[in-house]
Amino acid sequence: MPTDIEIAQSVSLRPIGEIAAHLGLEDDEWEPYGRTKAKVTLEALQRRLTQPRIGRLIYVTAITATAAGEGKTCTAIGLTQGLGKVGRQATVCLREPSLGPTFGIKGGAAGGGYAQVVPMEEINLHFTGDIHAVGTAHNLLAAVIDNHLSKGNALRIDPNRVVWRRVMDMNDRELRQVVVGLGGPANGVVRETGFDITVASEVMAILCLADSITDLKERLGRMLVAYTYEGEPVYARDLGVHGAMAALLRDAFRPNLVQTLEGQPAFVHGGPFANIAHGNNSILATELALRLSELVVTEGGFGADLGAEKFFDIVHGYTGLTPDVVVLVASVRALHMHGGVSKREVEQANPEALLAGMPNLIRHIENVQRFGLPVVVAINRFPTDAPEELELIRTRCAEMGVPVALSDVVARGGEGGVELAAAVLDALDQRPADFRPLYHWNLPITEKLDRLATQIYGADGVELSPAAQKQVREAERNGWGQLPLCVAKTQHSLSDDPDLKGAPTGWKLRVREIRPSLGAGFLVCLAGDVMTMPGLPTHPAAERVDIDASGRITGLF
Amino acid sequence: MPTDIEIAQSVSLRPIGEIAAHLGLEDDEWEPYGRTKAKVTLEALQRRLTQPRIGRLIYVTAITATAAGEGKTCTAIGLTQGLGKVGRQATVCLREPSLGPTFGIKGGAAGGGYAQVVPMEEINLHFTGDIHAVGTAHNLLAAVIDNHLSKGNALRIDPNRVVWRRVMDMNDRELRQVVVGLGGPANGVVRETGFDITVASEVMAILCLADSITDLKERLGRMLVAYTYEGEPVYARDLGVHGAMAALLRDAFRPNLVQTLEGQPAFVHGGPFANIAHGNNSILATELALRLSELVVTEGGFGADLGAEKFFDIVHGYTGLTPDVVVLVASVRALHMHGGVSKREVEQANPEALLAGMPNLIRHIENVQRFGLPVVVAINRFPTDAPEELELIRTRCAEMGVPVALSDVVARGGEGGVELAAAVLDALDQRPADFRPLYHWNLPITEKLDRLATQIYGADGVELSPAAQKQVREAERNGWGQLPLCVAKTQHSLSDDPDLKGAPTGWKLRVREIRPSLGAGFLVCLAGDVMTMPGLPTHPAAERVDIDASGRITGLF
Repeated sequence: MPTDIEIAQSVSLRPIGEIAAHLGLEDDEWEPYGRTKAKVTLEALQRRLTQPRIGRLIYVTAITATAAGEGKTCTAIGLTQGLGKVGRQATVCLREPSLGPTFGIKGGAAGGGYAQVVPMEEINLHFTGDIHAVGTAHNLLAAVIDNHLSKGNALRIDPNRVVWRRVMDMNDRELRQVVVGLGGPANGVVRETGFDITVASEVMAILCLADSITDLKERLGRMLVAYTYEGEPVYARDLGVHGAMAALLRDAFRPNLVQTLEGQPAFVHGGPFANIAHGNNSILATELALRLSELVVTEGGFGADLGAEKFFDIVHGYTGLTPDVVVLVASVRALHMHGGVSKREVEQANPEALLAGMPNLIRHIENVQRFGLPVVVAINRFPTDAPEELELIRTRCAEMGVPVALSDVVARGGEGGVELAAAVLDALDQRPADFRPLYHWNLPITEKLDRLATQIYGADGVELSPAAQKQVREAERNGWGQLPLCVAKTQHSLSDDPDLKGAPTGWKLRVREIRPSLGAGFLVCLAGDVMTMPGLPTHPAAERVDIDASGRITGLF
Repeated sequence: MPTDIEIAQSVSLRPIGEIAAHLGLEDDEWEPYGRTKAKVTLEALQRRLTQPRIGRLIYVTAITATAAGEGKTCTAIGLTQGLGKVGRQATVCLREPSLGPTFGIKGGAAGGGYAQVVPMEEINLHFTGDIHAVGTAHNLLAAVIDNHLSKGNALRIDPNRVVWRRVMDMNDRELRQVVVGLGGPANGVVRETGFDITVASEVMAILCLADSITDLKERLGRMLVAYTYEGEPVYARDLGVHGAMAALLRDAFRPNLVQTLEGQPAFVHGGPFANIAHGNNSILATELALRLSELVVTEGGFGADLGAEKFFDIVHGYTGLTPDVVVLVASVRALHMHGGVSKREVEQANPEALLAGMPNLIRHIENVQRFGLPVVVAINRFPTDAPEELELIRTRCAEMGVPVALSDVVARGGEGGVELAAAVLDALDQRPADFRPLYHWNLPITEKLDRLATQIYGADGVELSPAAQKQVREAERNGWGQLPLCVAKTQHSLSDDPDLKGAPTGWKLRVREIRPSLGAGFLVCLAGDVMTMPGLPTHPAAERVDIDASGRITGLF
């Protein structure tokens, strides 16, 4: 099979104007970025978002994945292509790729095989510049905070309590913890700080949650950036550059339109982390797609305990958006892993391990059902899957009354997504959603945490570190207690321990820190080590990327 | 008078396709970025650059400027507009603005008043993402070097001799000198390093000097990044990611097309510093414009001792490009400064100070003439200028046989540039260029330095620090002695001391370090303190920038 980039480069793309017209966008409602990318104008957004939603929302999530991922993005794209094959008008909404992982382990993040969004190289490399804009806005604020410290510090910011770090769109472990301001007073104040990867910035989360430029600017102003010597919070608006930050984000705020390999509309916009942020593409893109398209497919980061839960409890709360059906992506190899098989052997048939790993799938199904949402299991097919193992999954799901479909979209594109498309359409017809969030925002923080831990992750309860207990009290005293929670825990387990596979029980969620993301509008609860600046592997993917004399890029995958 | 951004927003822009068509570009030779920006395709570049140059090149430079700058960019744009007013087809080629100064002291860098390139906000904020691409390519290499150090260090790189720093497109003094890799072995190797502003990156210089993707990649591979424990040079190609870096730069490599306020073509592309780099826009943009336009106006950074000299000695050597005429921008207030007037009083009439400051102008005129090029002095008019002082300048230049024209383009746009346009056209007709570079590249390094110091800067000679003497020997031993020189000295004086105004004599150029920029293809000779990461002022320009609910940006100037 050809590589992803070979497939992507072998397809003739439709001019982006055709895609826009097919969606019903007028000529003045979008602007081209090259011949095959576009951004929707702010005027069009303002006009369209006052109209009623006409589309039904299909939310793609996954079981707890292997390190390689289980193909949520491919499935979302391939399902869209499959819906197209059966004659339906569908649009996919995705997060945009970060350069760090592209050059690290992961390669590209625009789908794979015959289920991709294109132009693949451009989406993976800079795209329309949104992530760079987020990084610049973030780092402008950082520079202004440090400038304030070195120019008299009128706000009395404690240099040891600046919580606003810097960002870079790169996997650069060397920058996780740094000392800045060395070399004498002309170089500012010496202090310890660090860099996160840009998509971990609260600015990215805000970009994805704001519903207007005004909302964007206000959210930026609300961000907590430091504490004074007296322990009082300092907000971004106190530094006076949230207007400049919003100006830097003006174009990044506008959803990007591209296409699937089969010529359907794809909004690829925003990309917050699914641990310290909510992990879903911009609400503007999803809301817009729901005004333009009969069926809208979207996906969230990591497993259903992370991205999906955050969509249901955070995004829903800010927007009222609810899915009509949830597609839960599983794979034979991931179930093997949950059944105790080592990384090297997950591709070998092993029905016992598969059955032993099934509780992870079951737990995620039950979790989705707890929100009152119908679920369809999509088995993302790999060439090594044994038919009897696929049958075992079907049988177990049938016992639970949950529809299952094989998805073979990486190998076969839309054709490989027809079975899943049919199952999804059937669920939309037959299985009405009756959505209810897991918790009301006005519950006490510890009560909200307890619900998440026990009802979603399967823990026996929650253990707060002494520091976290103090932060909970502070948060409630500062009036932040009514915010939804964003638990930052490992994506490699339903628990907070990456080594616990399956559906772990008999453990407690250990929360070590509460970090208020006041602009995004949630309290990040850190459980375990959460990586906000990845490192590169010994041989980074960047070593394989190249360009020839004609400008053709190779080695992305 | 309205502000720059008010003027820019009051003008109806022509669709960029009209500008491209006016230049004779076919529809498939450019790609839109929004409705009023475009990039020329690589195919078009390959095709066009094999054709002969048809245009004449007008190079705009300046005397030693005040801290506020003397209006080179405005003059270049206004001259282009003036040439348009007298019925000539002219294109302007400029550097693109860096976000650091935009949010620091300077405000925007797309001209001013009625002499601007537009869309002004977009050119100043991210534009088409070129500078972000440069920063990403630069920082990818930095991350890979540190990754190499922490993954076995097969190349035996001495962590204390990594010369490749990181970059950020921000004025952030706090990052000038940092310690990275803190927090234990998982976070890499502890070492001292720092950040420069992105436009100071050698990658930016390369982007502006490379003539093809192949050349771009080769130059990136040639960059010196570190030394081994044994003192041997380590090049970027040894890390194996110069292909990925070139891939990241693919779109940034393509010249950007925008327009002047009066609807003429403007290529705004690349923006290297004029001290540690050569300070001129991309050669691709200039070469392309010379194939498409009868008259091409371009400008270089800082005074004629910096940007212009580097164009004549570095850019010419790599491309064969020579100007047909040089416009030297002067102003009454700058001549006051050179005559010893304090910063606060430069706007008050003071004919004696003006005459006392004249040697700076004269020296720059003689310098340009030394290259065999005809020169036209443009007096950039400020509202406070006294007529008798303007007359004094005219008289003095007339004595030297040098044409002078008043330029009133900031206040009056193209109409204010007609006098200058006429003088330039007259010089093109009447004053043939007989270009000769200052030195042959194959002279010894110290001989080249001596020529620059004595013949351009007016020094008595050169003093090399012991370290620089050693570096000269090393450079010659390593085979880098035949590269042209790029002197990094203050832009505030013809000398290496920013406080010496006028045309200082009786001093020696003190060179403290030789820094090989092997990818760009020159040896940077550092004379005095050269700032490669600016800081923010007490009240950064960012505090004034804002955006309203409709997305209109205000406060750029």
